[in-house]
Amino acid sequence: MKLVTAIIKPFKLDEVKEALETYGITGMTVSEVSGYGRQRGHSEVYRGAEYTVDFVPKIRLEAVVEDLDAASVVDVIVKTAQTGRIGDGKVWVVPIDDIVRVRTGERGEGAI
Amino acid sequence: MKLVTAIIKPFKLDEVKEALETYGITGMTVSEVSGYGRQRGHSEVYRGAEYTVDFVPKIRLEAVVEDLDAASVVDVIVKTAQTGRIGDGKVWVVPIDDIVRVRTGERGEGAI
Amino acid sequence: MKLVTAIIKPFKLDEVKEALETYGITGMTVSEVSGYGRQRGHSEVYRGAEYTVDFVPKIRLEAVVEDLDAASVVDVIVKTAQTGRIGDGKVWVVPIDDIVRVRTGERGEGAI
Ligand SMILES: Nc1ncnc2c1ncn2[C@@H]1O[C@H](COP(=O)(O)OP(=O)(O)OP(=O)(O)O)[C@@H](O)[C@H]1O
Ligand SMILES: Nc1ncnc2c1ncn2[C@@H]1O[C@H](COP(=O)(O)OP(=O)(O)OP(=O)(O)O)[C@@H](O)[C@H]1O
Ligand SMILES: Nc1ncnc2c1ncn2[C@@H]1O[C@H](COP(=O)(O)OP(=O)(O)OP(=O)(O)O)[C@@H](O)[C@H]1O
Ligand SMILES: [Mg+2]
Ligand SMILES: [Mg+2]
Ligand SMILES: [Mg+2]
Repeated sequence: MKLVTAIIKPFKLDEVKEALETYGITGMTVSEVSGYGRQRGHSEVYRGAEYTVDFVPKIRLEAVVEDLDAASVVDVIVKTAQTGRIGDGKVWVVPIDDIVRVRTGERGEGAI
Repeated sequence: MKLVTAIIKPFKLDEVKEALETYGITGMTVSEVSGYGRQRGHSEVYRGAEYTVDFVPKIRLEAVVEDLDAASVVDVIVKTAQTGRIGDGKVWVVPIDDIVRVRTGERGEGAI
Repeated sequence: MKLVTAIIKPFKLDEVKEALETYGITGMTVSEVSGYGRQRGHSEVYRGAEYTVDFVPKIRLEAVVEDLDAASVVDVIVKTAQTGRIGDGKVWVVPIDDIVRVRTGERGEGAI
C-alpha cells in the first residue's frame, strides 16, 4: 500500500475530493498547512506589501491507497489541482507497511 | 524504526496517550485534522441538516518507535481508540531511515 | 528521494527556514502541532501550575529532498534548531517513491 500526500491550493480541495471520490477513493485526511516552493511564495499572494512574502496557506491531503491505485490517484490529484499558475502544489508517494481499521481491527488492503 | 500514524476520534486522545505511556512510548506528536472514510462522514455527526456531511474533525497522532514495538503500539492504539462505531479511525505504519534528537544529535533507536 | 520531517520549537522556525534556504532547499511545508518527548513536557513550559503539563506547541516542518541532500539537510536542521535545552525536537527521514510538481506534471528529482 501507498500513502499519497498532496499539498494543494485551498480553493481546489472540493474539486480534488470529488475527483477522488469519482475515481473510487473511499477515505482521506486533510489539514491546514503553510508552505512555499521555488519562488518562495513571491507573487503567489498580493498584499501590496514590501516585506518578503513566504509561507502561503495550503491544504495537505493524505490518502492511503492500494499499490495498483497509487499512480492513478496521483494523476487524478495533479490533473484536478492544476491551474497552470505557480504554487499549484506537490504530490508525493510513500510506501507503507500496513494499515488497520480501528473499528474492526481489519488489516491490509481490506482496511483501506 | 517505524513511524506509526493514527487518525482517531478527538475524545479518545487522552485515553490513547495514557495507554501508550503505560506501554512505554516516550514521545508523540499530535495535530488537528479532518477526514472521512467509507461512509463519507454520514451519520458520524448530526446537525439536523440536509446538506452533505463529509469532513469530520479527527486527531492525527504520530509516534516514531523501534521496529520491535511497532506491532504492539498499533495494537494498543486500536484497542484503546475503538468504540465499535463508524469513524473510529485508521492506523498506518511507515518505515523510516533514521531519527535524530535535536538537543544532543543522537541518532537511531537511542534518539527515540 | 527522501521526506525529512522535523519537529522543532516554534521560535526556531525562521532561523531553520533561512538556514535551509542558504543550503539550497527550495521548498517546505509547515504546520502547527503539539507533542512531548521523554520528559512528557515537564519543565518545558512554566505556568506556575500543579497539574500535569504534557503537550507543548511545536512546528512540524516537511521537506522532500534529493537522496544526496538528506543527510546535510538533517544536519542543518539539527544544528540550527538546537538550543541545548530539553524539548529541542526530533528529525526523521522517510524514503519516498516519487514526487510530482502539480503545475507542470514533472516527476522525480526535477519536481522537487
Ligand atoms: N520540496 C518540498 N518539500 C515539501 N513541501 C514542498 C516542497 N516544495 C513545495 N512544497 C509544498 O508545496 C506547495 C506548493 O509548492 P509549489 O507548487 O510552489 O512548488 P514549485 O516547485 O515552486 O512549483 P511552481 O513553479 O509551479 O510554483 C508549497 O507551498 C509547499 O507547501
Ligand atoms: N484511505 C484513507 N487514507 C487516509 N486517511 C483515511 C483513509 N480512510 C480513513 N481515513 C481517516 O480516518 C478517519 C476515520 O476513518 P473511518 O474510521 O471512518 O474509516 P472507515 O474505513 O470508514 O471505517 P468505519 O467503517 O469503521 O467507519 C477519517 O476521518 C480519515 O481522517
Ligand atoms: N517518538 C516520537 N515520535 C513522534 N514525535 C516525537 C517523538 N519524540 C518526540 N517527538 C516530538 O518532538 C518534540 C520534541 O521532543 P523532545 O525534544 O522533547 O524529545 P526528547 O527525546 O524528550 O529530547 P530531550 O531530552 O532533548 O527533551 C515533541 O514535543 C514531540 O512533538
Ligand atoms: Mg512555487
Ligand atoms: Mg467510516
Ligand atoms: Mg523532551
